[in-house]
Amino acid sequence: MEQIRKHESKVRGYSRSFPTTFTTAHGAIINDENHRQYIDFLAGAGALNYGHNNPFFKMKLMDYIDKNGITHGLDLATEAKEEFIRVFNQYILEPRELKYKMQFTGPTGTNAVEAAIKLAQISTGRNNIITFTNAYHGHSKGALRLTANEHYRKGLENELNQFTSFLPYYGYVEGGFDSADYLDQVLSDKGSGIDKPAAIILETIQGEGGVNVAPNEWLKKLRRITEKHGILMIVDDIQVGCGRTGKFFSFEEAGIYPDMVTLSKSISGYGLPMAILLMKPELDKWEPGQHTGTFRGNNLAFVTAAEAIIKYWKDDKFQDEIKEKSAKLFRILNIIKDENSDIITDVRGKGLIIAMEFIDAETASKVTREAFENGLIIETCGSEGNIIKFLPPLNIHHNYLNEGIKIFEQAIESIKEVELV
Amino acid sequence: MEQIRKHESKVRGYSRSFPTTFTTAHGAIINDENHRQYIDFLAGAGALNYGHNNPFFKMKLMDYIDKNGITHGLDLATEAKEEFIRVFNQYILEPRELKYKMQFTGPTGTNAVEAAIKLAQISTGRNNIITFTNAYHGHSKGALRLTANEHYRKGLENELNQFTSFLPYYGYVEGGFDSADYLDQVLSDKGSGIDKPAAIILETIQGEGGVNVAPNEWLKKLRRITEKHGILMIVDDIQVGCGRTGKFFSFEEAGIYPDMVTLSKSISGYGLPMAILLMKPELDKWEPGQHTGTFRGNNLAFVTAAEAIIKYWKDDKFQDEIKEKSAKLFRILNIIKDENSDIITDVRGKGLIIAMEFIDAETASKVTREAFENGLIIETCGSEGNIIKFLPPLNIHHNYLNEGIKIFEQAIESIKEVELV
Amino acid sequence: MEQIRKHESKVRGYSRSFPTTFTTAHGAIINDENHRQYIDFLAGAGALNYGHNNPFFKMKLMDYIDKNGITHGLDLATEAKEEFIRVFNQYILEPRELKYKMQFTGPTGTNAVEAAIKLAQISTGRNNIITFTNAYHGHSKGALRLTANEHYRKGLENELNQFTSFLPYYGYVEGGFDSADYLDQVLSDKGSGIDKPAAIILETIQGEGGVNVAPNEWLKKLRRITEKHGILMIVDDIQVGCGRTGKFFSFEEAGIYPDMVTLSKSISGYGLPMAILLMKPELDKWEPGQHTGTFRGNNLAFVTAAEAIIKYWKDDKFQDEIKEKSAKLFRILNIIKDENSDIITDVRGKGLIIAMEFIDAETASKVTREAFENGLIIETCGSEGNIIKFLPPLNIHHNYLNEGIKIFEQAIESIKEVELV
Amino acid sequence: MEQIRKHESKVRGYSRSFPTTFTTAHGAIINDENHRQYIDFLAGAGALNYGHNNPFFKMKLMDYIDKNGITHGLDLATEAKEEFIRVFNQYILEPRELKYKMQFTGPTGTNAVEAAIKLAQISTGRNNIITFTNAYHGHSKGALRLTANEHYRKGLENELNQFTSFLPYYGYVEGGFDSADYLDQVLSDKGSGIDKPAAIILETIQGEGGVNVAPNEWLKKLRRITEKHGILMIVDDIQVGCGRTGKFFSFEEAGIYPDMVTLSKSISGYGLPMAILLMKPELDKWEPGQHTGTFRGNNLAFVTAAEAIIKYWKDDKFQDEIKEKSAKLFRILNIIKDENSDIITDVRGKGLIIAMEFIDAETASKVTREAFENGLIIETCGSEGNIIKFLPPLNIHHNYLNEGIKIFEQAIESIKEVELV
Repeated sequence: MEQIRKHESKVRGYSRSFPTTFTTAHGAIINDENHRQYIDFLAGAGALNYGHNNPFFKMKLMDYIDKNGITHGLDLATEAKEEFIRVFNQYILEPRELKYKMQFTGPTGTNAVEAAIKLAQISTGRNNIITFTNAYHGHSKGALRLTANEHYRKGLENELNQFTSFLPYYGYVEGGFDSADYLDQVLSDKGSGIDKPAAIILETIQGEGGVNVAPNEWLKKLRRITEKHGILMIVDDIQVGCGRTGKFFSFEEAGIYPDMVTLSKSISGYGLPMAILLMKPELDKWEPGQHTGTFRGNNLAFVTAAEAIIKYWKDDKFQDEIKEKSAKLFRILNIIKDENSDIITDVRGKGLIIAMEFIDAETASKVTREAFENGLIIETCGSEGNIIKFLPPLNIHHNYLNEGIKIFEQAIESIKEVELV
Repeated sequence: MEQIRKHESKVRGYSRSFPTTFTTAHGAIINDENHRQYIDFLAGAGALNYGHNNPFFKMKLMDYIDKNGITHGLDLATEAKEEFIRVFNQYILEPRELKYKMQFTGPTGTNAVEAAIKLAQISTGRNNIITFTNAYHGHSKGALRLTANEHYRKGLENELNQFTSFLPYYGYVEGGFDSADYLDQVLSDKGSGIDKPAAIILETIQGEGGVNVAPNEWLKKLRRITEKHGILMIVDDIQVGCGRTGKFFSFEEAGIYPDMVTLSKSISGYGLPMAILLMKPELDKWEPGQHTGTFRGNNLAFVTAAEAIIKYWKDDKFQDEIKEKSAKLFRILNIIKDENSDIITDVRGKGLIIAMEFIDAETASKVTREAFENGLIIETCGSEGNIIKFLPPLNIHHNYLNEGIKIFEQAIESIKEVELV
Repeated sequence: MEQIRKHESKVRGYSRSFPTTFTTAHGAIINDENHRQYIDFLAGAGALNYGHNNPFFKMKLMDYIDKNGITHGLDLATEAKEEFIRVFNQYILEPRELKYKMQFTGPTGTNAVEAAIKLAQISTGRNNIITFTNAYHGHSKGALRLTANEHYRKGLENELNQFTSFLPYYGYVEGGFDSADYLDQVLSDKGSGIDKPAAIILETIQGEGGVNVAPNEWLKKLRRITEKHGILMIVDDIQVGCGRTGKFFSFEEAGIYPDMVTLSKSISGYGLPMAILLMKPELDKWEPGQHTGTFRGNNLAFVTAAEAIIKYWKDDKFQDEIKEKSAKLFRILNIIKDENSDIITDVRGKGLIIAMEFIDAETASKVTREAFENGLIIETCGSEGNIIKFLPPLNIHHNYLNEGIKIFEQAIESIKEVELV
Repeated sequence: MEQIRKHESKVRGYSRSFPTTFTTAHGAIINDENHRQYIDFLAGAGALNYGHNNPFFKMKLMDYIDKNGITHGLDLATEAKEEFIRVFNQYILEPRELKYKMQFTGPTGTNAVEAAIKLAQISTGRNNIITFTNAYHGHSKGALRLTANEHYRKGLENELNQFTSFLPYYGYVEGGFDSADYLDQVLSDKGSGIDKPAAIILETIQGEGGVNVAPNEWLKKLRRITEKHGILMIVDDIQVGCGRTGKFFSFEEAGIYPDMVTLSKSISGYGLPMAILLMKPELDKWEPGQHTGTFRGNNLAFVTAAEAIIKYWKDDKFQDEIKEKSAKLFRILNIIKDENSDIITDVRGKGLIIAMEFIDAETASKVTREAFENGLIIETCGSEGNIIKFLPPLNIHHNYLNEGIKIFEQAIESIKEVELV
């Protein structure tokens, strides 16, 4: 870590929480230079739903490189891109009766969000965007504006605070308050001061914001309200799409059809940079080249992305597996919560994104550090840092899932013993 | 192209200008599905300075993948990253006496620009950024604001027009006007209305904006003026860095030491998504994790990036080669200009980014289309579209360079003949 | 009205609702060119709390003009200004233990609001301002941004929507929701997305917004919350200050001490343009001349303003009178409501600003038109236009109050009869 | 001054430069509480073109008050307003073939500017406004944004810097540079980064900015350029309209017909708060009441304003007088300059707004202080404060003009003597 410590900017984060140098990885396992092995419940913050260096895609990737397949193609037409589009359409969109057009944005989630917002503004002529408390949409200015956590806004508040209305997310206000009704009220009322927005953007589960889950009924209601008022609904499925909640899209169960959807993180399957914006065809008001980016055609990613879809999404098997693992993980975590109700206050989530809420950030932080010492990588989230987020690869082998949980339980016991002493 | 035509957003650009499906590529050659072969004078818009699928890096890349080297690592410490930092420091920074710290931003040029602007604003407490006519810095909101071309701003003007002052770039105003003196005047004068900025950001050669070259003396003057007024100087070297002008950094010859530098495009060597922000250590005011991104640790890119530096930048040989090719290309293009002074009005540039200015966009466009028909990929640039930009791989073999030029010459002749008829 | 119809901009408003040309006025009576006489329950939208051309001040004003007292003095020191400051301090501030410094802004309410916001931003270094649903603060850009009614924002939404967070005013959300608690929550929570503001600005009774009354307890709570979070509290007392609610300041009964207070409308006593910003001394961070305006020293207004304070505010008599009239008006309006519960849904208000809410805008509008036909000037308010606002001069003679109410009652009867027919 | 010193905000300005308490005034003479008499070359910063308490208007004003003419009328139709509109149309607009509609804004110059900008934005759908170096348009946010002097922007730069492009005013850049050509260039060029604006706003003579005079030819060129590009031209004639330059409108000599014109300061004739926006009829896109203000109907001002026009503008006599005085003042000031070329660097201006530029602010400031000691009120302007502005009442008696100049000359001699000693 000497080079990193000396020459990398102070902005580095994970290399502080998990202070060792990693070398190789495979599935749910990641190894460091001291030949220690870790179980990975962080999974690239959702970018490794199919595990590290998934062997099914790896062969395809190496073959493609070997035969000198196009690596960098701007947005030229390439075989790899044609194939990805075909596969995504056949196995993902068509079976779900979604008629989206695809935009390949710069290969970062934030860039897909930027494209969505720009398109919403261009196609409606309105600037305002409604976003929610604890929302996370990225770090470039157009996306950062929509991101709630003050840690990320620090020093830039005087600029960011514009063209954006933050509304309370589901459950943010306690009591009988329904934030969807509130949205309806402010949009209906000429005196609310909330200018009619181009769009609302939301995560169906706020991953970074503390694993806050929006119920299907609430999502349906939002969809009705946005349609009623003629405003667009953008689902940012970057963290919880690609199977994380048990379905390919996180909004499938709610039966809604958002106007736009952003995907990134696990879309390439192999952890390669890639991002897509899906939009209803009638919204596709772009002029040629109006939103560009040098790496919007990362062809290596197209190769593994197509393979991931064929491998995992052509039938229901994978979804059933996730369901089963989710049920198991919930069961165990609830037991742990019950046994440690003095420090654990909640377990919540969906599919394989599950939060365990601790009484404070210090305790949560002790647990993750202790877990790391014992070979488990798992991180905290939420604006207060008191929530531990379980985000294992979706295809994690049961043995590793069990072992990871065991290390986690021991970490809790261990920090409690220390406190007793 | 059927899939792309049906399902990709209207935003697609290059697949319209070069309407065929590409399959494989090697060096300066790119092949399509009809087994046609093209010489590539576009070079990934500057992302392929070392050619397509450079064989030196390819082996390293395949070995790394094969041994299950970390692919996706967020910003965890990895061996590949350590090595890249070491190599970049040893062969690039130290010999040039540059003491920059490195930030690995999301792997797009626009994200590096976003990070630079945010850091400039955070560290100075000032919002305003000075940018220049014909500037190009990217498409996310923070970067788009700094980008001059109205095509990219369309439909968003009412929002973008803020926290930014556009000043005339070198040569923009004809006559005795010196835009550096003008910058000094507006910063010195309490009544200019130009609020003291956090930074100026500039390209030393405006690539997308029409290959406008800033002389070394002007860059030095800008550096003195920015120092005098206590404002930061950010050089966006995304398109013309990594050797494009003949040196690794485009500003080396001017002998200036910018406060921040953005790199992307060719930095990975292999066309893989990667971006860096270099900053003087005293500017590194980030808090841990304050600017993040899922793909800021694209380890495959680190592997090829390190190899590119070792291969091409440990001595002066490569720079001498570029110099020689540049001289040759300028010589020939000037001859072509002289022979076609009815339609060609200027040849300008530096290193291997050379512009040929035509009397109008239509003529330029006819030439590039005709060239494509005959096996040469080359594009137009500038806000008026009347400029053809020569951007071959820096390591292009002389045979291909000659052949490309020949096709280009024939294209000119051919369109002139048509007009005669 | 010929000249007005032909040459005044379409922006004219009241001359449409009350389409006659007025000539003279006295107390609560206003006369038109056809020698018709109207009782004035509009009172200059709150600018004529002491009636038209109050005879006590008129003599002073004429004397001052006659002796060539300074009329226009920029912000030079003048006798008239000295005297106003002395009197305002002695009879208004000191007895209430308020230690404000005074700023004489441009003589419009909106200019006082602009000054308050600017000072809040300058003294805290923060841009964001919290304002409320149905708020009204004026029409210049800094104030318009804080104003909720979409009628006023129309065509400018894309610019106004910034540096402002609209929160629900007291009672805006039904059910157990407390908007003060919500304010506390978003300010306490690092993930609310509401950037820490420089200030909150509020009307204790939203006059233009529909006569929404904030209870004293709620105001106290807001004061505690703003102090807890270190943000300023600005009370915009332009419409409901100067005795309208029964006390000089509308917030007196709540026992709070706002950081800044804006006054205008009735402050001059005679309907002359004048506006003041009161600020706690420690907030007075202005540099000399940093907020100026040609008419910030309207000396004729200082003369009548001083006289108004001496005449009406040196003891409690006037306040008792208002109280009595208020009780009477409430009593009668509630009877009217009860008798017309098919079209009247609410009576609310405080002091002599009382709203009668109708089932719809059309009915309310018919009533005011009918009343005007019969000699009563009274207007509607609220973003839906279904609220009639009773705003008589505070010193209205009982006879005129009674007569005005009678005309109003008859107007209701009359429109109901029409509907029967 | 005790009350002012203790209780008025630090923002007070003129009462510092001219530290005495004034009592009465008449014509060009203003008196203080110590019975000292001053000649007034400041003239309410342009609000007293007809002198203090002009006796012709005073009688009308007192009669109107005495008969209980409407004082405060919101924007109700009144006799006084009808008469003003009639007179303004007959004697000002019609003879000049100007077909403007009139909007009575809040009675401050800044409010008229706000209305103009809002209307320009609403009617074009564009946000950007082009303004100029050293421009001064007021202090409310929409106008302050357009104002160049950093003293006024201080602490608010991070917010103001938007929707505005500052271009160099005539003469700002030395050498052959023509700022009108530059405007044409940036508007014609797709790569200038200057978004197509709704309007340009300008003063034909920048009064506060240092008495910078735009030649007639340049104004004509601007008018042609704005028409060519379909953008509005707004002339802010608040300081130099109403006869200050020798004609009623400052742009008359240039023979241009601006799209909108703002008037305030001397429009009421008597120093009473009043402001007007003139607009071409086709621009009058306001909805009723969309821009309002409590004091937009200051009827006392209408009375004196109508009288001022009848008295001074029904024939050419007054204009001839101004011309004569202007020539005289220029002649003498140029002599003074020649005799003091060590400290005076320029004399410039037009009509009766004339600047004398000193080598530095300190010298200029010493001169004005010394002049004040000897009975002359005259102020400095410009962002550097080294310019003394001669702004006497237009109807100043020759004796007082001579005497004022004499005091000024002696002040110069006196400060030079001090320096000798």
